[in-house]
Amino acid sequence: MTDARQAALDYHAKPIPGKLSIELTKPTATARDLALAYSPGVAEPVREIARDPENAYRYTGKGNLVAVISDGTAILGLGNLGALASKPVMEGKGVLFKRFAGINSVDIEVNAESPQAFIDTVARIADTWGGINLEDIKAPECFEIERTLIEQCSIPVFHDDQHGTAIVTAAGMLNALDIAGKKLSEAKIVCMGAGAAAIACMKLLVSCGARAENIVMLDRKGVIHSGREDLNQYKAMFAVETDKRTLDDAIDGADAFVGLSGPGLMSADHLRKMASNPVVFACTNPDPEIHPDVAHETRDDVIMATGRSDYPNQVNNVLGFPFIFRGALDVRATRINEEMKVAAVHALKDLAREPVPGDVLEAYGKESMSFGRDYIIPTPVDVRLLDRVTSAVAQAAVDSGVARKPYPSHYPLTAVDDIYGA
Amino acid sequence: MTDARQAALDYHAKPIPGKLSIELTKPTATARDLALAYSPGVAEPVREIARDPENAYRYTGKGNLVAVISDGTAILGLGNLGALASKPVMEGKGVLFKRFAGINSVDIEVNAESPQAFIDTVARIADTWGGINLEDIKAPECFEIERTLIEQCSIPVFHDDQHGTAIVTAAGMLNALDIAGKKLSEAKIVCMGAGAAAIACMKLLVSCGARAENIVMLDRKGVIHSGREDLNQYKAMFAVETDKRTLDDAIDGADAFVGLSGPGLMSADHLRKMASNPVVFACTNPDPEIHPDVAHETRDDVIMATGRSDYPNQVNNVLGFPFIFRGALDVRATRINEEMKVAAVHALKDLAREPVPGDVLEAYGKESMSFGRDYIIPTPVDVRLLDRVTSAVAQAAVDSGVARKPYPSHYPLTAVDDIYGA
Repeated sequence: MTDARQAALDYHAKPIPGKLSIELTKPTATARDLALAYSPGVAEPVREIARDPENAYRYTGKGNLVAVISDGTAILGLGNLGALASKPVMEGKGVLFKRFAGINSVDIEVNAESPQAFIDTVARIADTWGGINLEDIKAPECFEIERTLIEQCSIPVFHDDQHGTAIVTAAGMLNALDIAGKKLSEAKIVCMGAGAAAIACMKLLVSCGARAENIVMLDRKGVIHSGREDLNQYKAMFAVETDKRTLDDAIDGADAFVGLSGPGLMSADHLRKMASNPVVFACTNPDPEIHPDVAHETRDDVIMATGRSDYPNQVNNVLGFPFIFRGALDVRATRINEEMKVAAVHALKDLAREPVPGDVLEAYGKESMSFGRDYIIPTPVDVRLLDRVTSAVAQAAVDSGVARKPYPSHYPLTAVDDIYGA
Repeated sequence: MTDARQAALDYHAKPIPGKLSIELTKPTATARDLALAYSPGVAEPVREIARDPENAYRYTGKGNLVAVISDGTAILGLGNLGALASKPVMEGKGVLFKRFAGINSVDIEVNAESPQAFIDTVARIADTWGGINLEDIKAPECFEIERTLIEQCSIPVFHDDQHGTAIVTAAGMLNALDIAGKKLSEAKIVCMGAGAAAIACMKLLVSCGARAENIVMLDRKGVIHSGREDLNQYKAMFAVETDKRTLDDAIDGADAFVGLSGPGLMSADHLRKMASNPVVFACTNPDPEIHPDVAHETRDDVIMATGRSDYPNQVNNVLGFPFIFRGALDVRATRINEEMKVAAVHALKDLAREPVPGDVLEAYGKESMSFGRDYIIPTPVDVRLLDRVTSAVAQAAVDSGVARKPYPSHYPLTAVDDIYGA
C-alpha cells in the first residue's frame, strides 16, 4: 500500500473510527439539568411543536441540521459500490459542512431497491432536518429523485453533484470567458459528458445567459443530436440539429470545453482546433480530460480549470454547498431555487475579482494572487466565502419569495467569527 | 406559563436551539487534512468498505453510533402528537446516550402511513448505524415493528419503552421481593396496564423466574382472562383462567403490583388488600397509580417504587439503555437478546446491594444510603453503572453467541474515565 493510501486509512481509523462526534450544547451535570433535557421538562417543547410545527426550529436542532443522503450508486468516480461504502464520503461531507459553514449534518445511507423506494424513504424522514443534501446518486435516476423530493418536502433538497458542481463551474466559466474577451451569450460550448453534473452545468449556464443552441453535449456514443433515438428526457433537452458526430467535429472553433466525462478524452489536437483563448474545464478527477501541463504546452492562450487542488483554478464543490445551505437555513428557505443558485454563481464570480487579503494569501501559501488566467475561481481557504456566498443566497431566497424569515437573520452562526473563531 | 415550563422551553431554545451539535474528531486545518477527510483520500476507506462491509466499523463512526427513531405515536405520556413533535424527546435520548455512555446518536422522526411503511423505511437506512433505539411507538404496532426490524437488520434493534422499562423494573422487583422475604417464582403479581411497557415487563419477569400463571394483567376493560375475545396476540399471552374481573378482585392477596397504566388507578383500599410487605411499582408519570405518601400512610410495610425522581426508588430507563447499547456496541453484538437483558437486570440488582461510595452519595446529596426499602434500585448518578451494566451485557452477548468481537474489547470508550473525565 502506498503512503498516501495508508495515510488516508489511518486518518479515518485513528485514534477513534470516523471523523465526527455528537456533543452536548446544554448543561447536563445535575439532576435538574437532566430533568430539563429529558423527562419531565422535554414535554414542554413537545407540546409546543405539536401546537405549531414551526416551533421545531426554536426548540430542536432542526434549523441547523442537514442530512447528507446517498444510495451509493455513484460514489466519487468509483461507481456503484453500495450504500454502506459511501459512508466515509457522506461523513466527509459532514466535516465540510461543519468546518466551512458551522452546519451540523448527519449521513444517511439508503439501501433502496428502486428510485421510488429511495424517494419514499427519504420523504418519510425528511421532517427530521432543516435541509437535505443528496449525494453520489447515479444519473438519470438522480433527476427524478431530486425533482420528486423537492415537491414532497417543505425543506431544501439539493443534489450537490449536480448543482454544486454547476455553480462553481458557471462562476469560473463567466470569469474565464471575460478574460478571453468573450460573452457567455455568444460562446460556443462543448460539454463532454452527459451525466448528472454535466446536465446540471449546462442548465445553469443557460440560466446564466448561455444559449442552448450554442451548446454541444456528448455522451459515450458521441454528439447528442436531434436524430438520436436513444436519449433519455434529460439528454434530449440538449439535443441539437447538427451533422457533428464526434468530439473532433464538435470542438472545431469552440470557445469553451467542459469535461465531466473521463480521463484523457481530450487530445492536444482537439485543443488546437478550438478558437482563440480557449477555455478548458477538464474536471474529471484525479486524471482530467486533458492534463494541464499538456494543455499549456499545446497552447499559450488556454484558460484552464480542473478538479485538482495541485493546479490553479480548482472546481471544488466546497466553494458552494456549505454556504448555499447556510444561506438557505438562515432565512429558512423552503427550497433552493434557480435564483439562489445564480446568486451563488455571481457571488463566487465577483469574489475572484476582488483583491486577495493577506490572510488568504498566507493560508494558500502564496505571495500574491490576482484575478487572471490562473485565478478565476476563489479558493476554499478564502474566509470571505462564508459571508459573500451565504448572504447572496439568503438575499436571493428572500427576493424570490421562498424565505420564511427575513435577512439578515439573527441566527448566531452566520457570523464568520462564530464559525472560524474570532 | 409556570416557571418550570418556561425553564424547560428556555433550556431548549437558548442560546442556540436544541441540545446537540456535530463536532469534528480529526484535524481539518490544512488542505492536506481536508484531502484526507474528503476527496481524494476518502476513496480509500470507500474501497475498503466495498471490499468488506465490516470495515465500516474501522473507518467510519458506525460502531459508536445509535439512531433514536420514533413515529411519534406514543410520545411520553402525551399520546400521538406526530413524528416531528417527538424530536425534543429523541434529541434528549441522544443527550443521555452521550452523557452516560459516550455513545453518539442521531434522531430520526418517521412520518409513516403504516407500520409496514415504518419498517421498510428503517430497514433501508439501518446500515448507517451500529444500533437502533426505537422510541415512543404505540402498542400493539411496536411489537411487530420491533420483531420485524430485528429480523431484517444485522445490528441491535431495541424498543426502549418496552425493554428498558422492563429491565429496570425487574431489577427493582427482584430486590423488593427479596426484602419482602418472597421469591419471584412464587410471587403473585398484578400488572395494571397492558401496553408496550407492561407486556415487556411481565415477559422479562417470566424470563427472570416469575411464573406466568401467577401474573394477572389488566387493561382498560379489566382483567385479561381466557374468556375474553377482544385480545390481541400480545395480551392473549397473559390471559389466565380466572373468575377475577377487576383490580379489586385481582389485588386481593397479591404480593406485587406493577402500574403502567394511569394516575390514581390504585386506591388505599386496593393496597390494604395486598399480602404482607406489598411491593408497589406505581410507574405512571408524573402522577402515579397511587401516590407514595398515600401508600406509606396506608401501610407501614409497603415497598414502593415510582417513576419520580423526588421519591426513593425511581424506575428510570437511563439506568439501562445507555449501558445496554454500550455493551452491545463494544462486542459488536448482532442483536440484544434475552440473555443480555437478564444480565442487565442482575447487574442493576446486584449494584443496589453494594455499599454506596462517597462520590455517589455526594452526587445524590445524601449522607448515607444502604440497600433496603428506600434503596432497591441504583440511581442514575452512580458512575459504577457504566462499568457494571456494560460489562454484564457484553459478556452475556459473548456467552450467548451474538457477539462479533471478544470482550473486553479495546474500544477506548468503555473506560469510565474516558466518558466521565479522569
